[in-house]
Amino acid sequence: MTPSLRSKILKGRKFPKFPKFASRRIRQMIRVEETICAPATSAGGAISVIRMSGPKSFEICERVFSPSDKKLILKDQNGFRIIRGDIHDGDEIIDDILVSVFKSPNSYTGEDSIEISCHGSAYIVTKILELLIRNGAVSALPGEFTQRAFLNGKMDLSQAEAVADLVASGTKTAHRIAINQMRGGFSDEIGKLRSELLKFASLIELELDFGEEDVEFANRNELTSIILMVKDLADKLADSFRLGNVIKNGIPVAIVGKPNSGKSTLLNALLNEERAIVSEIPGTTRDVIEDTIVINELEYRFIDTAGLRDTLDIIESLGIRKTNEKILQASVILMVDEISEKPEDINRRADKIRKMIRGLDKKLIILVNKIDKAQQATQEYLKEGISLDQDDSLLFISAKNLEGLDELRISLGKSVENESINQDDVIITNIRHFEALRHVSECLARVIDGLGESLPEDLIAIDIRHAIHYLGEITGEITTDEILGNIFRNFCIGK
Amino acid sequence: MTPSLRSKILKGRKFPKFPKFASRRIRQMIRVEETICAPATSAGGAISVIRMSGPKSFEICERVFSPSDKKLILKDQNGFRIIRGDIHDGDEIIDDILVSVFKSPNSYTGEDSIEISCHGSAYIVTKILELLIRNGAVSALPGEFTQRAFLNGKMDLSQAEAVADLVASGTKTAHRIAINQMRGGFSDEIGKLRSELLKFASLIELELDFGEEDVEFANRNELTSIILMVKDLADKLADSFRLGNVIKNGIPVAIVGKPNSGKSTLLNALLNEERAIVSEIPGTTRDVIEDTIVINELEYRFIDTAGLRDTLDIIESLGIRKTNEKILQASVILMVDEISEKPEDINRRADKIRKMIRGLDKKLIILVNKIDKAQQATQEYLKEGISLDQDDSLLFISAKNLEGLDELRISLGKSVENESINQDDVIITNIRHFEALRHVSECLARVIDGLGESLPEDLIAIDIRHAIHYLGEITGEITTDEILGNIFRNFCIGK
Repeated sequence: MTPSLRSKILKGRKFPKFPKFASRRIRQMIRVEETICAPATSAGGAISVIRMSGPKSFEICERVFSPSDKKLILKDQNGFRIIRGDIHDGDEIIDDILVSVFKSPNSYTGEDSIEISCHGSAYIVTKILELLIRNGAVSALPGEFTQRAFLNGKMDLSQAEAVADLVASGTKTAHRIAINQMRGGFSDEIGKLRSELLKFASLIELELDFGEEDVEFANRNELTSIILMVKDLADKLADSFRLGNVIKNGIPVAIVGKPNSGKSTLLNALLNEERAIVSEIPGTTRDVIEDTIVINELEYRFIDTAGLRDTLDIIESLGIRKTNEKILQASVILMVDEISEKPEDINRRADKIRKMIRGLDKKLIILVNKIDKAQQATQEYLKEGISLDQDDSLLFISAKNLEGLDELRISLGKSVENESINQDDVIITNIRHFEALRHVSECLARVIDGLGESLPEDLIAIDIRHAIHYLGEITGEITTDEILGNIFRNFCIGK
Repeated sequence: MTPSLRSKILKGRKFPKFPKFASRRIRQMIRVEETICAPATSAGGAISVIRMSGPKSFEICERVFSPSDKKLILKDQNGFRIIRGDIHDGDEIIDDILVSVFKSPNSYTGEDSIEISCHGSAYIVTKILELLIRNGAVSALPGEFTQRAFLNGKMDLSQAEAVADLVASGTKTAHRIAINQMRGGFSDEIGKLRSELLKFASLIELELDFGEEDVEFANRNELTSIILMVKDLADKLADSFRLGNVIKNGIPVAIVGKPNSGKSTLLNALLNEERAIVSEIPGTTRDVIEDTIVINELEYRFIDTAGLRDTLDIIESLGIRKTNEKILQASVILMVDEISEKPEDINRRADKIRKMIRGLDKKLIILVNKIDKAQQATQEYLKEGISLDQDDSLLFISAKNLEGLDELRISLGKSVENESINQDDVIITNIRHFEALRHVSECLARVIDGLGESLPEDLIAIDIRHAIHYLGEITGEITTDEILGNIFRNFCIGK
């Protein structure tokens, strides 16, 4: 092989934005000397929990906490113990509290940690946090507890990411995938791929060590079949992202149509039905995930409902551009029209939408509303006159009388392929993992080509190393400050 | 004494609505056989806590919880222990959790209790509650945990009430009073009064036992001075309610004025300033107590701000009646006018308000807004022309430029007498306590009259018993289902 050819090949192997290898996590490590604290529950409940973690947790707590049993010394307690007492600012008693003690390494973060369980008052929580900070703790950054758990080897990066997914999961499937990932199911899968590649790499590199001697320790065909198998697994995982993304983020649905066609009535009908379906255990409302309905374990998310909620539907007519944006964001478009309309007008409007979504993976459902205001014959007449594309659906409803909503739910449910998922299927839901797996697949494709073209081992070894690198990025064996920063920035405070 | 006179006196002693004496708490006791569960934290935090209390707590928990240490048996654990493991619905794992174990009688409720600390997801919390209920627990009613603590003698009734006050307290003073009451400060005070009266009653009743023998064990003058002292203390406590109520509930403030006079700008300026003052620890927002500002440790609560927040100020002009209601609800009225107005118009509007609030304990502050739009001379001119009643204030401000807001805060602060409170002052904040103390005072006044008129001991004894009864109502030695129902209904779920 000529040097110029070699440099040409090598150039092709240079990744456009190759991440800096873990810059020794130094920045994080400095901060680890600090003891961090944050509220772990949101305001408004009967109790609140405040977390503190770091080398000085016990010391700081002792300065502001008097156990009911005066002789008790906090730092001499075993972990997984609860101690009752009061927290005070000098002479002023702030609250009667419980302190849970966790000792390194047997804690969430792996560090010495405490959890303070106090009465659920914003005033008390703020006061206690102030006290802790005044006595040496620092305010935790979003996700910093989990970040420390990762840095201390309590979990790998994909498990840490699953913690955030778990907190956000709103359906059974999303929850199951997140908890499986948090408990290491996905990491195991990645680990298997990685160890296959490491085995491969060591064989190749052994050959390299023998340099010019042209020894072949491994049968090229066998090697190729290993790589093919690994690539196949990586591709399968990457492919699962399509479904995983839908499971995690829900399916965006747009409701569009002329003013007064009953869009807001329809939205309210669907959401009210949903609230009635959702379990009615007092104290657990679904207010947080308000504009969604769940069909076949998938969440359908109505986008930009602010305009629809406004009773003055007319306002919407101001925003044609906004409607267009909405259609482009959605996977399913509900076009609402009235039974009093002419079929040609409905067709004209539907055509406009079809033109916008042509070639895009979107589904159009035409809803003829207000059937309570017309005879059955009118329905028949419209059904004749409205033309449909292959993937379109046409439904006749009365949002006001809650007629046809079941059919709409069925039609929505069919709008997305929802292959039944097995209990043990590993599905990726994280775009970071998807991208890493795609890179793995690309590297392995080059390895396969290289093996076929009998390229020198050192070139093949580079691609293998890169593939291993990308797998390591998923679980965090290899990481950069930037990756870490991006991941934990999206966590909530106290997690 | 003639029988008719006696019956006349007795009649006067009949209380219009004398509460049924504790109907043996039977209804509550039946329910106590149940094991109750509820979320103890609100949705949206990093972690959530679920509480369960009652005889079957450990049994129910064991059915759905697998400790990480497989050999461990939950009910054999000591109290104040934390156990790690996972909670599962059959084969499906719901979450990795921590279970805190509390054994009767060393728990909040006095019963066997557990607290489950899980990931803060509405889905997970609902799922766990469903599981617990399916396995034999029942959903807790509002305040039921605290009610059980009361029934099991862990706290008296006024302490239980203080738990709710503590959770709601938004200022240092409100917090201090609530925590003092929760820790039994107020109960001690009531206990002292009660034991004085019991001593007195036993002396009187001893005399009664001797019937017709006309023995006097106690010097009537001494008795009178004891009762006077007790009555004096009861009156002082009752009087503290005026301040206590303001501390607990805040001072209602109305902002009124013509459309476009800048009412919403003023409100926003005051509230934004407040948010800047409030401690800025991340994760602790004051969103929950949004429309209040704190001056001299007292909360000023802006009432009916919905209209003001609407940018279309004009809408307010539709609701004259609403404005009037607002004025009647408020203790302080901020009348906003513009610097461009004529003094006679301002006077006319102020007079209207003065007429409404005449004889009521309300204060009027006239705010001349938009001083940025006029010369100093205009201010002088208006100052001359605007007539003020004795208690009125007149301030010139620019809500837009944040001018004059400090003066407004000072003026608001002066609008309520805020006697400085000593650390150990007992202040009542609860209207139920206020009413009971007033009854006590009435009974004791009659006792004093009776002693002066040398009424027979049996009549005096009735009033003493009534006074003791009312004191017992405060702490809950004596209670009715109705009182209990009213108190705990206002608690949140999980408390």
